[in-house]
Amino acid sequence: MQTIQELLAAIQPLDEQKQAQAAQHIDGLVKPLNSLGRLETLAIQLAGMRGLTRLDDLQKEIIVMCADHGVYEEGIAISPQQVTHLQALNMLKGTSGVCVLAKNNGATVLPVDIGIDCAPIETMLSLKVGRGSGNIARGPAMSRADAELLLLRSARLVQQRAAEGIAVFGTGELGIANTTPASAIISVLSGCDPHEVVGIGANLPADRIQHKEAIVRQAIAVNQPDPADALDVLAKVGGYDLVGMTGVILGAGACGLPVVLDGFLSYAAAMAACQLAPEVKSYCIPSHFSAEKGSRRALDCLGLTPYLYLDLRLGEGSGAALAMSIVSAAGAMYCQMGVLAESGIALKA
Amino acid sequence: MQTIQELLAAIQPLDEQKQAQAAQHIDGLVKPLNSLGRLETLAIQLAGMRGLTRLDDLQKEIIVMCADHGVYEEGIAISPQQVTHLQALNMLKGTSGVCVLAKNNGATVLPVDIGIDCAPIETMLSLKVGRGSGNIARGPAMSRADAELLLLRSARLVQQRAAEGIAVFGTGELGIANTTPASAIISVLSGCDPHEVVGIGANLPADRIQHKEAIVRQAIAVNQPDPADALDVLAKVGGYDLVGMTGVILGAGACGLPVVLDGFLSYAAAMAACQLAPEVKSYCIPSHFSAEKGSRRALDCLGLTPYLYLDLRLGEGSGAALAMSIVSAAGAMYCQMGVLAESGIALKA
Repeated sequence: MQTIQELLAAIQPLDEQKQAQAAQHIDGLVKPLNSLGRLETLAIQLAGMRGLTRLDDLQKEIIVMCADHGVYEEGIAISPQQVTHLQALNMLKGTSGVCVLAKNNGATVLPVDIGIDCAPIETMLSLKVGRGSGNIARGPAMSRADAELLLLRSARLVQQRAAEGIAVFGTGELGIANTTPASAIISVLSGCDPHEVVGIGANLPADRIQHKEAIVRQAIAVNQPDPADALDVLAKVGGYDLVGMTGVILGAGACGLPVVLDGFLSYAAAMAACQLAPEVKSYCIPSHFSAEKGSRRALDCLGLTPYLYLDLRLGEGSGAALAMSIVSAAGAMYCQMGVLAESGIALKA
Repeated sequence: MQTIQELLAAIQPLDEQKQAQAAQHIDGLVKPLNSLGRLETLAIQLAGMRGLTRLDDLQKEIIVMCADHGVYEEGIAISPQQVTHLQALNMLKGTSGVCVLAKNNGATVLPVDIGIDCAPIETMLSLKVGRGSGNIARGPAMSRADAELLLLRSARLVQQRAAEGIAVFGTGELGIANTTPASAIISVLSGCDPHEVVGIGANLPADRIQHKEAIVRQAIAVNQPDPADALDVLAKVGGYDLVGMTGVILGAGACGLPVVLDGFLSYAAAMAACQLAPEVKSYCIPSHFSAEKGSRRALDCLGLTPYLYLDLRLGEGSGAALAMSIVSAAGAMYCQMGVLAESGIALKA
């Protein structure tokens, strides 16, 4: 995967024959037909992925893309900007929300410095090309060349981790102010007004939402991203973390492996990824319905329905971490349940 | 707990002081305030339960109440009736859906013969007073005395398992035809017409739903259960499994321990339990939104909102088993996340 074209071309459709076989296997398990609903559909989806050689005991990892955002200076977030750096250190210590929730489901967390506004952190993997992206309210977040570079680096990281045994990826992020570029991406790619998408992020007071909306509108007006060119959108009104997440999604698809989305930021990245390579949607597994305002709009565009309704708005990959138990459950059902034929049970459809 | 009155009197309100302390602790964790949404609410709920001494590493068990139903002879289910017995054997072997899903989340399954139409099964715990309940379309499912006896036996089983270390219970069931009595219970206790509640159960063909509805209506007309007396409703139009589940819910509440509900059958049992002891609702944890028709109505009556949307309609406790990971996650969040004070992070509300 030396170029974006190679990356995108590597994303193949699911194997329909394997899916048909999986459906047949599931229909023979000791339960009424279709009674495990979406758990069955998920198992069939996984069965069609060429990168998986089995469905249970899969190694799972959440890749947490950490970066700062120049748009912070517009006053669209209330957390101090250095929280990105401080919380990245908590990722390394394993005390952040996603770390605890991932561990609870037997998944690992890989935090990545893809543009935190700090000097290199010794124990943290770095893919970064800059310390914080540009202020999208005044100009582009980054150059197109940087976006392409980070997209490829992120996809290659997935390829490398897959070679090391990871079979299920999750998308996470950390970046103070990042719901602003995510809102811009979703607005542009869905064609809807920022008013329908912009929410409170990390507890922005209600009386400042209108300002945040105005900044998103300004970012779009200033940069004029091309809605038909997701890479242009990511580079102009996105951010390093969002490009990285898009790369993780595309990288997983290129490896024929599942990628569990998190919330609002993931939806934005997935919309970009699906525009670049529509086939990658087959590899995307939704997790939770984010409490952020634009979630319904983004999920409708993606055509995905989450499994979990927990009113989460932490980000970090916390919802993806929680949904790893659903992925495990689908695999366990597939591999460990008894079969009707051996139980003397004959059920009608 | 020698009498129903003692059982019900043992169910105490949650400890509000402990809940307030828990909320304060959660607000100090390394995340924006309230950003873990319902996971935070769940942890606060658990923190108020007097039977829990900690919130993580909790032993979890799904108690699966297995019984047959005389109303089967009315042709309201398509599975052969002996599937209850055969699938109970799969419960012992660990190959049923709930067994696999529980194991995947580190929970155990305890199948109980509370009225299967078979001779005693050597390796299966039995609480039974009869082989299959009466046909509710012609008379009561059981006597009030039997209902009281089974309710107490089930609650005492929970008490015993709690003494042996189980801290989180789940309600499961197995019983061919049992969506018919569950529909009758929900109709009577919610005051709505059977048409709003009766669904396909385990794949009843659409052209036989009207007949199932008529049988539920007939069961109510023949038995005239008193909607203000849940025990009367359970005895007249319920079944052994449903009485057992109600006993598990009340027993957990009496022990000050959480009980994770499953789907449609659990909703019916929880409605009965909450009428007998309204305080027990504080101990109930919803799991999934069942695909059975009357789910919305029952959940509205209970005032509970599920966490999982998976279109499940297997029963057995499969949804409760899946939701055990949410309970674990709430505990892990509470006990394992870092605190803001130690991270140098100051967040505004």
